[in-house]
Amino acid sequence: MAGGGDELKLLGMWASPYVIRVKLALGFKGLSYEDVEEEDVFTGKSELLLKSNPVHKKVPVLLHNGKPVCESQIIVQYIDEAFVGTRPSFLPADPYEGAIARFWAAYVDDKLLPSWLQSFGGKTEEEKAEGLKQTLAAVEHMETAFKEISKGKPFFGGDSVGYLDVTLGALIAWVHAGEKLTGFRLFDATRSPLLNEWVDRFGELDAAKAVLPDADRLVDYTMMRQAKAAAAAAAASNN
Amino acid sequence: MAGGGDELKLLGMWASPYVIRVKLALGFKGLSYEDVEEEDVFTGKSELLLKSNPVHKKVPVLLHNGKPVCESQIIVQYIDEAFVGTRPSFLPADPYEGAIARFWAAYVDDKLLPSWLQSFGGKTEEEKAEGLKQTLAAVEHMETAFKEISKGKPFFGGDSVGYLDVTLGALIAWVHAGEKLTGFRLFDATRSPLLNEWVDRFGELDAAKAVLPDADRLVDYTMMRQAKAAAAAAAASNN
Repeated sequence: MAGGGDELKLLGMWASPYVIRVKLALGFKGLSYEDVEEEDVFTGKSELLLKSNPVHKKVPVLLHNGKPVCESQIIVQYIDEAFVGTRPSFLPADPYEGAIARFWAAYVDDKLLPSWLQSFGGKTEEEKAEGLKQTLAAVEHMETAFKEISKGKPFFGGDSVGYLDVTLGALIAWVHAGEKLTGFRLFDATRSPLLNEWVDRFGELDAAKAVLPDADRLVDYTMMRQAKAAAAAAAASNN
Repeated sequence: MAGGGDELKLLGMWASPYVIRVKLALGFKGLSYEDVEEEDVFTGKSELLLKSNPVHKKVPVLLHNGKPVCESQIIVQYIDEAFVGTRPSFLPADPYEGAIARFWAAYVDDKLLPSWLQSFGGKTEEEKAEGLKQTLAAVEHMETAFKEISKGKPFFGGDSVGYLDVTLGALIAWVHAGEKLTGFRLFDATRSPLLNEWVDRFGELDAAKAVLPDADRLVDYTMMRQAKAAAAAAAASNN
């Protein structure tokens, strides 16, 4: 375990689910850190971000005593391995259970999240419909996975929060914001009753409450971004 | 470590770099396994494959005493964790070095491989040119990464083969086949002298020689697939 002299600095952006994921991991581990908010990750990236993540130039980046770790799932695994003993590991000790957790964590980022984004951000109605179709299929897979992995316990990790809880938990604030914005709730009581309950259960945890942004703030942020994009498109078409 | 009674079965397809990756991991660990070749992963998938990987329906799948593990990088990590003690771990013990290895392994699959595929498989000349541009940028990043990670030693893993060697090593047969097919060598002496030498060094290892398919066989296979695709397109346009 790293000693008490560790300096942790997180380069992030409050609304990003990938950044929220890292904040959840730090929170559940009880680690304090300096929260460095990038002014605008879309237009003006800081020198520190560009220097720390020269390959992808993206948040989140965790600086541990000045050494950068990039990519949210890799950062969570790093936190799990570098700060052992503060609480049960996120990843299970059993290699097979670990492989299953990694499989579904990859599924969240490779399938669930892109499909969901496409369901409301697609360029055409066809693209949006295809996104929704794939989202519903992904939710069905995730619901089955929760049932098989949790085995009747409250979390993917069993009695305490595990790797997959942290990975998927980062989406919870956006589940609420998405419902307010579009009327579509990613995990609802009909299609995914177990995950619907898990959303509330996870959201009630102290570490989650301390980290997850307010849904109304995400709604305002989304509408502001949409207005900016529309203004930019209008300005471009006037040139 | 798993005992001598372990049954390992690999559902694969000989030309797939993702399958080759798993074979390399098994080979370097000195593990014997049943090699189950899917007849045709593109048209007729076996019942065992569909049952073992119902989410992605793709090879490779490693069955360990009947329990399936899917996704090549997750399988390699599983093999590393489930069969300890047979040789040094692929992933370094140091969490920071582990995070760096995972970062670049993800980069191989998320950036290098898709760009390279696009450079010759793109639908238009513009797409191919963009793919080549991104490939060259990715090669430059990987060359720098090799220099920083290997610190003058022969492999990404230092004196012995590590996680990133196994991940990238799976592409070596395709580096040679690609050169024969298109004249473009992914890692060459001019742009990436260190990786160019690493290709030969890795390919000379006994475990690699036992696993990597012959480049001429990959060339024949690629031409057969291209001819089939052209015949299918011609048949479709005649309908």
